[in-house]
Amino acid sequence: MKIVVDAMGGDFAPKVNVDGAIDALREFEDLEIILAGPQALIEETIGAYADAGALASVRGRLSVVHAPEVISTEEHPVMALRRKKESTFVVGMDIVRRGEAQAFVSAGSTGALMAGAMFKIGRIKGVARPALATLLPVPGRPMLLVDAGANVDCKPDWIVQFGMMGSAYMRRVMKVENPQVGLLNIGVEAAKGNEQAQKTYEQMAKPQPFAFAGNIEARDALAGRCDVLAADGFVGNVLLKNTEGVISMLFGLLKGGLMSSGKGKVAALLAKDTFRDLKKSFDSTEVGGAPLLGVEGAVIKAHGNSNARAIFCAIRQARQVVAGGVVDLIREEVARLSVSGE
Amino acid sequence: MKIVVDAMGGDFAPKVNVDGAIDALREFEDLEIILAGPQALIEETIGAYADAGALASVRGRLSVVHAPEVISTEEHPVMALRRKKESTFVVGMDIVRRGEAQAFVSAGSTGALMAGAMFKIGRIKGVARPALATLLPVPGRPMLLVDAGANVDCKPDWIVQFGMMGSAYMRRVMKVENPQVGLLNIGVEAAKGNEQAQKTYEQMAKPQPFAFAGNIEARDALAGRCDVLAADGFVGNVLLKNTEGVISMLFGLLKGGLMSSGKGKVAALLAKDTFRDLKKSFDSTEVGGAPLLGVEGAVIKAHGNSNARAIFCAIRQARQVVAGGVVDLIREEVARLSVSGE
Repeated sequence: MKIVVDAMGGDFAPKVNVDGAIDALREFEDLEIILAGPQALIEETIGAYADAGALASVRGRLSVVHAPEVISTEEHPVMALRRKKESTFVVGMDIVRRGEAQAFVSAGSTGALMAGAMFKIGRIKGVARPALATLLPVPGRPMLLVDAGANVDCKPDWIVQFGMMGSAYMRRVMKVENPQVGLLNIGVEAAKGNEQAQKTYEQMAKPQPFAFAGNIEARDALAGRCDVLAADGFVGNVLLKNTEGVISMLFGLLKGGLMSSGKGKVAALLAKDTFRDLKKSFDSTEVGGAPLLGVEGAVIKAHGNSNARAIFCAIRQARQVVAGGVVDLIREEVARLSVSGE
Repeated sequence: MKIVVDAMGGDFAPKVNVDGAIDALREFEDLEIILAGPQALIEETIGAYADAGALASVRGRLSVVHAPEVISTEEHPVMALRRKKESTFVVGMDIVRRGEAQAFVSAGSTGALMAGAMFKIGRIKGVARPALATLLPVPGRPMLLVDAGANVDCKPDWIVQFGMMGSAYMRRVMKVENPQVGLLNIGVEAAKGNEQAQKTYEQMAKPQPFAFAGNIEARDALAGRCDVLAADGFVGNVLLKNTEGVISMLFGLLKGGLMSSGKGKVAALLAKDTFRDLKKSFDSTEVGGAPLLGVEGAVIKAHGNSNARAIFCAIRQARQVVAGGVVDLIREEVARLSVSGE
């Protein structure tokens, strides 16, 4: 299996990208990695890997493809992709498009990743809109939010497809046997919500190649009621970002409150393990990045602030998507959906 | 000033409603309260008030209007309002409509409250849709979310009005001098978001009778960036309910984590004050209920699980809305809005 890694994406590129890639090669012997980036810089970074012996043992499965241009997160994705033909995105995704690799991993611009995947790698036939999926930190039952922000003003049929694609991912990557797909809404009854939600509910309640768990209220979004939460990308993004914001605010307030008194400081010391475990359960590093579902390859968006471990995890995740045949499953099931044709 | 209180709304009616009303009369000497409910039951409940002397001193400002019917939260609001002419909602709101009272407070059905306010009390001329507003627990800077769930599929003009009405409330009730009105969106740039958000941004950026603070991302919704957060009611409700859900989940996880070890239990004991303060800062009791903005009277929705203190606070809040002339201010400013006419 071959995976292309954008060596220049993210805040700590290329060091953590290269390190994470080599770590992945050491862990998975079936893996070959192509690093996309400025040849000389990447070769030099490879040479600086901490464990020279380990590097030598995997060096044969690691190659570099020259991609001297970088697309920043500030650039307009589509224009940048057009102008920068030698960017890591264009060069890397062309390799996937030609079938010379099965996956593309980047911690760079989300917009460029999505647009590039659409135009370079291409949609799976029948998929209206590829969607970004994110695992939400539901205690004991990780839940995949689809769409987490790639598409706004979604038609009901697109959201039905998001549910199907999320179900395919959870089955094949997270090994959930019969994933329950919920619809994000403001009430549990079928008639609740805006026009989009009501129509989507109607469609989802028809026989589908996934199990429909009904409407899920935002209050219960993290309550472990379903395995996939299908949503319009605007609303999904609000849910995702708000969840992150509230968690970080609460930890901040708690810390501030405890540190303001002697008793609190002792409490903080004694509760260190609990706080660490709790924080860890919300740490997105281990679950990898956000898969872009609906394109003809495994495409993973790693966090912009990824360290080497996060890049490693995103590569591991890409490998699971490929090994699990998620793309094939989506290709098969898209035809089995009951949709309104909107 | 006269306020009608629905004596039968909420989980602990009529006891807490009656107690809260009497407490408010003891606190505010300019206040008269009309309790709407089954006459005999309410009189009996009044008689059972704990402090007979205090009750006697305010009894002259307390009256009961006979409203033997109750609309439950399970009933269809509009149908129930039509059928139950003697319900606390219909009887109570008719009093406000006739100008015999200035405010209506209920801990009962949100749907009946909104529909009743629309049809019985009536919209302020020029207001497209009354909106439900909720103060979010932003540390140090309470922020009013408008709309918190009354309207879905909002037109941009409605959302501009939500911002104006929220600003009027924050000026006159919360005494914020120049309230900053933000627009809930998935990015800060003007061109971000769905069609609705983009068009609303365009409108809000024109000269308006309120200060526009630009787009606010969901991640920063509780970060104290603005005083009013204007949003479509579907998205606003998702944000509100998700915030409540995440906070309650985190407290639950924290408690569970600490209680699972001896060290943790000691830490929990030492951190008791911090936890209590933190929980209190998210307690909605003290801020009162959710005002329904845009109708010809002060209408406050108190929580369904209100205790006497929460009812007292909701009445205090209704009094502030009336004393602050919020309805008059909205009536004046609605004509000054730059809208597209959509």
